[in-house]
Amino acid sequence: MATQEEDYLGITDYKVIGTRPIRHDGVDKVTGRAKYGADIDLAGMLHGKVLRSPHAHARIKSIDISKAEAHPGVRSVITVKDLPLQEDQIKDLGEGAANLMDLRCNVLAEGKVLYHGHAVVAVAATDANVAEEALDLIDVEYEVLSPVLTVHDATAEGAPLLFENQTTKSLGEDTGKKSNVTTHFQHKLGDVEAGFEKADIVVEREFDTATVHQGYIEPQNATALWNADGQVTVWCSTQGAFTVREQTAQLLDLPVSQVKVVPMEIGGGFGGKIRVYLEPLAAVLSKKTGRPVKMVMSRTEVLQATGPTAGSYIKCKMGVTNEGKIVAAQATLMYESGGFPGNWAAPGSMCIFSPYNIADVQIDGYEVLVNKPQTMAYRAPGATNAAFASETVIDEICEALGADPFEFRLQNTSKEGTRRADGPTFPRIGNEECLQLARETDHYKSKLEGKARGRGVASGFWFNAGLKSSASASVNADGKISLVEGSTDIGGSRAALAMQLAETLGLKSEDIKPQVADTDSVGETDVTGGSRTTFATGWAVHKVGLDIKAQMIERAAKLWEVAAEEVSYVDGVLTNSADASKQMTFAELAGKLGETGGPVMGRATVQPPGVGGAFSTVIVDVEVDTETGKVEILRASIIQDVGKAIHPSYVEGQMQGGVAQGIGWALNEEYVYREDGTLANGSLLDYRMPTCLDLPMIETHIVEVPNPGHPYGVRGVGEVPIVPPPAAVANAIYDAIGVRLFDLPMSPGRVLEALLKKD
Amino acid sequence: MATQEEDYLGITDYKVIGTRPIRHDGVDKVTGRAKYGADIDLAGMLHGKVLRSPHAHARIKSIDISKAEAHPGVRSVITVKDLPLQEDQIKDLGEGAANLMDLRCNVLAEGKVLYHGHAVVAVAATDANVAEEALDLIDVEYEVLSPVLTVHDATAEGAPLLFENQTTKSLGEDTGKKSNVTTHFQHKLGDVEAGFEKADIVVEREFDTATVHQGYIEPQNATALWNADGQVTVWCSTQGAFTVREQTAQLLDLPVSQVKVVPMEIGGGFGGKIRVYLEPLAAVLSKKTGRPVKMVMSRTEVLQATGPTAGSYIKCKMGVTNEGKIVAAQATLMYESGGFPGNWAAPGSMCIFSPYNIADVQIDGYEVLVNKPQTMAYRAPGATNAAFASETVIDEICEALGADPFEFRLQNTSKEGTRRADGPTFPRIGNEECLQLARETDHYKSKLEGKARGRGVASGFWFNAGLKSSASASVNADGKISLVEGSTDIGGSRAALAMQLAETLGLKSEDIKPQVADTDSVGETDVTGGSRTTFATGWAVHKVGLDIKAQMIERAAKLWEVAAEEVSYVDGVLTNSADASKQMTFAELAGKLGETGGPVMGRATVQPPGVGGAFSTVIVDVEVDTETGKVEILRASIIQDVGKAIHPSYVEGQMQGGVAQGIGWALNEEYVYREDGTLANGSLLDYRMPTCLDLPMIETHIVEVPNPGHPYGVRGVGEVPIVPPPAAVANAIYDAIGVRLFDLPMSPGRVLEALLKKD
Repeated sequence: MATQEEDYLGITDYKVIGTRPIRHDGVDKVTGRAKYGADIDLAGMLHGKVLRSPHAHARIKSIDISKAEAHPGVRSVITVKDLPLQEDQIKDLGEGAANLMDLRCNVLAEGKVLYHGHAVVAVAATDANVAEEALDLIDVEYEVLSPVLTVHDATAEGAPLLFENQTTKSLGEDTGKKSNVTTHFQHKLGDVEAGFEKADIVVEREFDTATVHQGYIEPQNATALWNADGQVTVWCSTQGAFTVREQTAQLLDLPVSQVKVVPMEIGGGFGGKIRVYLEPLAAVLSKKTGRPVKMVMSRTEVLQATGPTAGSYIKCKMGVTNEGKIVAAQATLMYESGGFPGNWAAPGSMCIFSPYNIADVQIDGYEVLVNKPQTMAYRAPGATNAAFASETVIDEICEALGADPFEFRLQNTSKEGTRRADGPTFPRIGNEECLQLARETDHYKSKLEGKARGRGVASGFWFNAGLKSSASASVNADGKISLVEGSTDIGGSRAALAMQLAETLGLKSEDIKPQVADTDSVGETDVTGGSRTTFATGWAVHKVGLDIKAQMIERAAKLWEVAAEEVSYVDGVLTNSADASKQMTFAELAGKLGETGGPVMGRATVQPPGVGGAFSTVIVDVEVDTETGKVEILRASIIQDVGKAIHPSYVEGQMQGGVAQGIGWALNEEYVYREDGTLANGSLLDYRMPTCLDLPMIETHIVEVPNPGHPYGVRGVGEVPIVPPPAAVANAIYDAIGVRLFDLPMSPGRVLEALLKKD
Repeated sequence: MATQEEDYLGITDYKVIGTRPIRHDGVDKVTGRAKYGADIDLAGMLHGKVLRSPHAHARIKSIDISKAEAHPGVRSVITVKDLPLQEDQIKDLGEGAANLMDLRCNVLAEGKVLYHGHAVVAVAATDANVAEEALDLIDVEYEVLSPVLTVHDATAEGAPLLFENQTTKSLGEDTGKKSNVTTHFQHKLGDVEAGFEKADIVVEREFDTATVHQGYIEPQNATALWNADGQVTVWCSTQGAFTVREQTAQLLDLPVSQVKVVPMEIGGGFGGKIRVYLEPLAAVLSKKTGRPVKMVMSRTEVLQATGPTAGSYIKCKMGVTNEGKIVAAQATLMYESGGFPGNWAAPGSMCIFSPYNIADVQIDGYEVLVNKPQTMAYRAPGATNAAFASETVIDEICEALGADPFEFRLQNTSKEGTRRADGPTFPRIGNEECLQLARETDHYKSKLEGKARGRGVASGFWFNAGLKSSASASVNADGKISLVEGSTDIGGSRAALAMQLAETLGLKSEDIKPQVADTDSVGETDVTGGSRTTFATGWAVHKVGLDIKAQMIERAAKLWEVAAEEVSYVDGVLTNSADASKQMTFAELAGKLGETGGPVMGRATVQPPGVGGAFSTVIVDVEVDTETGKVEILRASIIQDVGKAIHPSYVEGQMQGGVAQGIGWALNEEYVYREDGTLANGSLLDYRMPTCLDLPMIETHIVEVPNPGHPYGVRGVGEVPIVPPPAAVANAIYDAIGVRLFDLPMSPGRVLEALLKKD
């Protein structure tokens, strides 16, 4: 029997969605044939390298490139002055000018360097070693300034300013006050002071989280050819070819259509492969040399100069009644922007209290400049830091109430109709269903025994994104469909998109041949990020399916000489309603298109509303080595509302990946800076990400509360799994050793310190 | 003021069509960046070579590949038995089986070799030299048979048969008679015998034409990768990627969608790059080795084994009254098929008498097997041979009547409503307009003086083709359009298609960024051939434009909050009819699509009727060196009805190219065979094509009688210019030296021989 959700979607039975076919790009990826950015090799290609700042904060007094230019293997040396987009042009732009100026000054420093590793000069030479060698021939004279490395330093009285004229915009108004704080905003729901007056128990805590990197395995890369006709082609691995196109075109001062971006396969992104770093440099070097130029970052460059996610300071206060009702919540969220303005408190504040139905809430968000690389998105950006704070406070409240953490959360759960502090009211969501299922898991019901072992739980929310997607498709004579779409495939989206098209047309996943196209070959499509691809590009391919279906019905009608209304289309079979003996499969009709007017193509573009928020809850068991402070993860489970799991294996993969990264963030990962602001651990030996030896198999429990705003109920799954783990681990550590930790990472040293302090 | 044609098309003024913008692929082609088939280089790539028959006709007794296989650099050696499609499978196919068997046996010989250069074994090795070396290690034992090299030999009593069981199909019936004649057909109009009875003058002549090659500069090439998942990718230069896909898929026994063909730039085709030669071999070698395999023909292989066009024997008889009215015409056309059945008498017969309105006509066509490479299309295939015959006879008639050749033709011209002998009735055509303009050209009005100089004229017809085309396009935020289409660009079709899309949308040619897509990226599109691309793919891009236009109107309506009917779209400007102050250019609206529902894409597929036949007439002045027999072309003009010239420069280029090739065919080009059937002149030193030193600047006169069957009046221009030149040259030679030549080429030896015979 159909569930309620199936009923309101008008769907009772999926044929393809929910199955686990082999991914279309699988063989290429396991055999090594898939082409990544570093696999590009063009005739006459030069190699580019970047000279980076050795200082965290300094004024550039002079740059002497003459010796490098004189090197026989060097073909071009550029500084920010060589970027086509000039400073005065940007000033004329009005809105958006600030972002563009930041983009430009991040790509090559202008006047000042703002973090260790900030790009200063780029060189193109006959090979990569020569280019590297030439960097040593460049003399840059710096006036070294004091760096600020945390929101605390940056907001301290008399702190050095990254931008001398930076003032704070507070509640939409320019305060005129010079500061490293670029933005302060506030969300208010009800009356938070009145709310706290109703509380019997109030817990308030402060949390600091370190800078962590997305840790994708493939370094940033870009190869560019600025052709003699002014057309620029860029090959790179990116989460969004159209975004690279737009940013590159802006910096090159070209209309977008003059830039073509060819997306290569991508070795991970997690939010860190959206902004351009090398692309405009490779393009300008190509223009100056007339040859293609390839640039690939080293691991150290990746860690020093590409977006880690924001470290943060968060103060979180919640009040409950003795009956277990949360009556008020208040938070101050301060996020590190890095060297250029960021926007992470905004999403953090949208997520921090959203798992709960709280009448009175106040949230203050601050974006703060520090002398670190410009921070970038990392899976549900801002939300993990925020949930670490709020879910630790919730845990303390549960302890004070003596309440079961899931019972407590169920009592306060947000659901359809609950208003978020930042404004929106929830449509149908699956928060409650996740908590109910979590409570019933074998993991939660199992007993955890042993010394210094503990269990923690936490919940998280991510709102997911919609944005623009486009696709086209062609029917082949054998009944298979070539699908052209613009979304980078990071986690199996070719399969998830092909399956939605197959479902729409009553075909099989293998009947669809999906292709991630370059920016000249498909309509605009936003980044693979924000958990939007399966949702929005899925919607686009569904619409492509409807377009094809309508045409196929017309063709059948033509063959049978009946009106299109007389033709039914069910499960990939066309039937003449007037004469049921007349039936054709999709493939049979595909073979006859020549008799009915030629081939059939479909196309669709979307910018869908109806984004469905996602919730997850995580259960973690840990054992703490009380002698070393090392925390071992014994067991981890994630329960997540995915809306509808198109390809459950890839959904599970996303859930496991998010939890794994969340555990790394919780326990070990952090940027370690020396006092002078230089990065001390710029390698994967020293920047400690979890390996499979550090993790148990992560148990996944898919909850499917279809998103009513999507034809197949998709919500998006990639981000929310990273949100709860740090809090869940912190709560488990408390359960194990009775010590609460308020700072990330909860590394052995910090755990030991806390233990010693307790004793 | 609008002409009548413009009126019936509802168009009085084109903004883009008829202008001469720079072609989009120009810079890449002149700078050498354009990638042709031979530019492919893949990691781990092997190189393939083909062992070819040294005999024109022989039975293969045995093939020993063991020594070649033992060569350390050899990775695979294949014969026809290694092709996935097996003989018994073909037999089950019924209709189309014969063609497929021929395709298979041409690609690798089975049992017999049928021409000098017929492929027998293919080898893949670590480099091309090793592969070449390995060919010498293969032992093939042949039983040599007598070859037949002309239709006369082949149809002689007791002639050796290429296929022992071949019987003639005559007038649709299998005669059961064993023969090298595969097909005999007949077209009848009126009563030809009664017609000849009305004639005062009857001229009957016999004509032989030699085998000539298309002479494209780029040799055939193919690189293939048979991936571990069974997906096959083929890179090659071809006139039709989808045709290569279909033929390759058939021979590999795969569904079409399992083969992806990536069309590289093409260095000429002229009809000769439609059928596969190397593609299936490279694919099978790749399957056997697990590595990509590249194969490129040598020039000798191109001449020995790829489609030359058919040599022919034509008997032509025409009767006129003393008043100059053609009352009857009869022809027998026998075309060389080469080693496998061909279909060239068919188009020859559709063209031979079509410039004239003749009541009583009979045409008999024969397709005849000979021991030469399977003949292929070459610009208006069959029509040049046919016009050589009929237009020479016409010239003799004019002489007999003392009539001006254009006056005579105008008196008998075919026009709208004239019925062709092969059935169809002409729609609006421009035959008459061409003749009228030809009569008025400076060339025709000029006096030709000097010894052994003469002027000749001739007319020709080609019916043109429609077939299937597909395209899609995306609107960029800067108002430019990315166009994706499937037609190989041989003569400027990117420009001609972009211009039609620009015209439809009121944009500029430069606003469109055209791309020739691979077979996975666009709907099925037939070959660039038959003068169909600007017509049919042009129609498809026009429809894409209408699709985009309708969506842009809807978006503007949304922005202005009015009904779509209220929005007018003129010359790329959208106006709110209710409030004319509300206006946006296409580009302005393109920048606002995000506010109106996302990007805009268009798509269209066509299989258009309404093909418009094309006529041309050529005037040639020659001087004959009566001592050597060498003919020099002093002046040449072509007057051609192109329907509508989208890009006049490329139309003129086609007209000039066709005339140049027609002159080569007329004067020098021929396959010279030794008595044993081996090709004696398999190189471009010995196979004499005209160079620019052999030709004057060819004068072009475009006639525009729009094709009422196309939205922009396009007819197609690539083929008909090759049709009249051989006859025009023959008529000019007669005018110069009083000797009529009935055989092609009219090489110095032959001219001298005729002169001697005359004296």
